[in-house]
Amino acid sequence: MSLPLDVLEKAVNQKLLLLLKDGRHIEGNLLGYDEYMNLVLDEVEETKDETKRRLGRIILRGSNVVSIAFI
Amino acid sequence: MSLPLDVLEKAVNQKLLLLLKDGRHIEGNLLGYDEYMNLVLDEVEETKDETKRRLGRIILRGSNVVSIAFI
Amino acid sequence: MSLPLDVLEKAVNQKLLLLLKDGRHIEGNLLGYDEYMNLVLDEVEETKDETKRRLGRIILRGSNVVSIAFI
Amino acid sequence: MSLPLDVLEKAVNQKLLLLLKDGRHIEGNLLGYDEYMNLVLDEVEETKDETKRRLGRIILRGSNVVSIAFI
Amino acid sequence: MSLPLDVLEKAVNQKLLLLLKDGRHIEGNLLGYDEYMNLVLDEVEETKDETKRRLGRIILRGSNVVSIAFI
Amino acid sequence: MSLPLDVLEKAVNQKLLLLLKDGRHIEGNLLGYDEYMNLVLDEVEETKDETKRRLGRIILRGSNVVSIAFI
Amino acid sequence: MSLPLDVLEKAVNQKLLLLLKDGRHIEGNLLGYDEYMNLVLDEVEETKDETKRRLGRIILRGSNVVSIAFI
Repeated sequence: MSLPLDVLEKAVNQKLLLLLKDGRHIEGNLLGYDEYMNLVLDEVEETKDETKRRLGRIILRGSNVVSIAFI
Repeated sequence: MSLPLDVLEKAVNQKLLLLLKDGRHIEGNLLGYDEYMNLVLDEVEETKDETKRRLGRIILRGSNVVSIAFI
Repeated sequence: MSLPLDVLEKAVNQKLLLLLKDGRHIEGNLLGYDEYMNLVLDEVEETKDETKRRLGRIILRGSNVVSIAFI
Repeated sequence: MSLPLDVLEKAVNQKLLLLLKDGRHIEGNLLGYDEYMNLVLDEVEETKDETKRRLGRIILRGSNVVSIAFI
Repeated sequence: MSLPLDVLEKAVNQKLLLLLKDGRHIEGNLLGYDEYMNLVLDEVEETKDETKRRLGRIILRGSNVVSIAFI
Repeated sequence: MSLPLDVLEKAVNQKLLLLLKDGRHIEGNLLGYDEYMNLVLDEVEETKDETKRRLGRIILRGSNVVSIAFI
Repeated sequence: MSLPLDVLEKAVNQKLLLLLKDGRHIEGNLLGYDEYMNLVLDEVEETKDETKRRLGRIILRGSNVVSIAFI
């Protein structure tokens, strides 16, 4: 069985596509995470209502995340 | 009696249909889960307002889930 | 006095009518539950805006439940 | 001083009028409760937008309750 | 320094004006409280959209309270 | 480094401007606080949609606070 | 791997751009933080619907934060 945090561990340094509760999409490389699924991401690009914005490095609070896709 | 997490345990490697709080439907094979009902799913197809999207492998945060159906 | 979880215990294998926070109604036989009132239900029928849908067996997360009626 | 749970204890077998977060009113006899203010109620009548509905016996999750009035 | 619960302790048997998250105002005499700021109030008058309603004695769940004013 | 609760400790008896989740602004002198950032404020003035209202002494539940500015 | 709180530790005395749940943007220098990601910020500028406002020093509750970008 694949535990969610183990799957996240294997995704460090890989590219993720996140869906947030407010409908925003976040694409970026995973640098780190903690037990609450707070994430550190690099080379982040945010998409909201078809508008893209580059954000560099961010901390994303896990409570806002709906899903994390591996791309 | 069937405990919710025991039922989830037996569903590993089976197909699930999830309803999320934002109305989205997620269909995929269950790879794993944790005590918060965070789920790891593979071969995921998301349906929102009758639009389908393939997402591959995802982690889904349990706090967004309304119900998990076995199909 | 009747503790809520004791009342749930006695309802195993009986038919329940649930009201969810999003207005949906869920009818089904209770197979099991846990301390967070996550429920396992069988022969489930969901009603939303007067549209019915059969869901078979589901896990329902307790945090979405408003009330559980015994029918 | 009257602790909230002590006041609830004394209300067992009495009639309550509950206001829920979604605006619904619930009237019923209190059969039991737990520390989260989950309630067991009997002979329940629900009122929503001036429409009444009889529900018999229910478990009501405390997280949906705004106020409990003694009538 | 005045701790919030100490200030509440001194307000027992005094009149309070509460603002709830749904915009409702509640006026009443404080009979008791607990560590979650669940309150027991007596001689309660509720105001919503300029309509007043007398509620007698109520338990109010602390999670719905925005502010407690001393009047 | 300045810990949030240490900064609050130094602000006792000083004037604060709070922004609440519902858009309301609260101005008042800080009398006390607890670990949940529940606050006791005096000489409070509330502003909502450009309407001001004097509230005297209040307890404000921390869960409704977005930000606390020092003025 | 970069833990979220370690990344925050290294950002003390640096400029951050925060996105809040209500759509507000907050720019300011990080003075401190705690384990809940409550933040102390200085020289704060808030942007809401293209209107800017200077706030000086603030405490920001972590539960309102979506993301923290390093600029």
